[in-house]
Amino acid sequence: MYGLPKAFEQLVERLQKLPGVGPRTAYRLAFFMLNWDPEEAGELANAILKLKSEISYCKQCFSLAENELCSICSDPKREQSLICVVEEPRDVFAVERTSEFRGVYHVLGGVLSPVDGVGPDQLRIKELLKRIEKNTVSEIIIATNPTVNGEATTMYLSKLLKPRVDIVTRLASGIPFGGDLDFADEVTLSRALESRRAL
Amino acid sequence: MYGLPKAFEQLVERLQKLPGVGPRTAYRLAFFMLNWDPEEAGELANAILKLKSEISYCKQCFSLAENELCSICSDPKREQSLICVVEEPRDVFAVERTSEFRGVYHVLGGVLSPVDGVGPDQLRIKELLKRIEKNTVSEIIIATNPTVNGEATTMYLSKLLKPRVDIVTRLASGIPFGGDLDFADEVTLSRALESRRAL
Repeated sequence: MYGLPKAFEQLVERLQKLPGVGPRTAYRLAFFMLNWDPEEAGELANAILKLKSEISYCKQCFSLAENELCSICSDPKREQSLICVVEEPRDVFAVERTSEFRGVYHVLGGVLSPVDGVGPDQLRIKELLKRIEKNTVSEIIIATNPTVNGEATTMYLSKLLKPRVDIVTRLASGIPFGGDLDFADEVTLSRALESRRAL
Repeated sequence: MYGLPKAFEQLVERLQKLPGVGPRTAYRLAFFMLNWDPEEAGELANAILKLKSEISYCKQCFSLAENELCSICSDPKREQSLICVVEEPRDVFAVERTSEFRGVYHVLGGVLSPVDGVGPDQLRIKELLKRIEKNTVSEIIIATNPTVNGEATTMYLSKLLKPRVDIVTRLASGIPFGGDLDFADEVTLSRALESRRAL
């Protein structure tokens, strides 16, 4: 298109497979890379290839890991009896950024979604139950995203876990910090009301 | 940071060298690539490497090319006597997208910028003068960006080219289509007034 070399068009096409990258951004990124040294371009290309070859998943929590266990599961300072259940590895790092949580994680690998053919067997629920059997678990915090499928998964897990674990909790839902009552949707605001706390 | 594998952090770091990609976007892109097949990741990595190895610059206009001459310079339908002077290869493709221009291009490789040590010798001005000497050129359109340095370059080129070429023009400056008088800055609006056209 527009007489651009084939190698350039190919890069633009590949870049558009990234989330949030449309044709304009892809062209902009490709023109930017054109001014890179070959070393700089090689570094990015190698980093992409290494991502697939060097990263594996933790045998215990299924988050990202370099060895058998991830750096969180193998950290002796972490409370192994407190498990936070999340959908994807990226959610582990979202919770980690708060620096508030001192327990360990369990990555489900998605949420229940009958439309997409994802049932309990497709998620790492069996593995979670095995972890509970083998180790003493004092509390499980369910931290799925507050979407329809996330809620359904929370309900399913809650029924399954309550007879097995003393405390099963979920993340609070309400108005985000810095938010505005006027801009909050009805569901969020009614949840904030429902879960109001004594001062 | 946050117990992420080294290969992941390295990719995040490299991605942040791209324009408009901050830490959050870089993490998002890297987590997205994690779900790719190794083939998909390989395709992007190869496209980045090929960009440096397979693309060269046109010997006549210094735009992107796969062979000695770019696809525009070697197109017999293009008017070789009408030259549009631009700053960078990406500007060639911006003009091409309009499908309005039937001439050829000349890429300067930047603009005059004394602060950054860019004088006339660092730009491809000598090459432009040689092109004018060798070929019959009827019109030169100067299409640098309307920035301070772009304007200075236009003025410099204009003085140099006027004795050598019959018609030397520049792109019109004014209010963009779909724009709003109220939001236009003073310089843009006063230029639009200055360059008003009879109806």
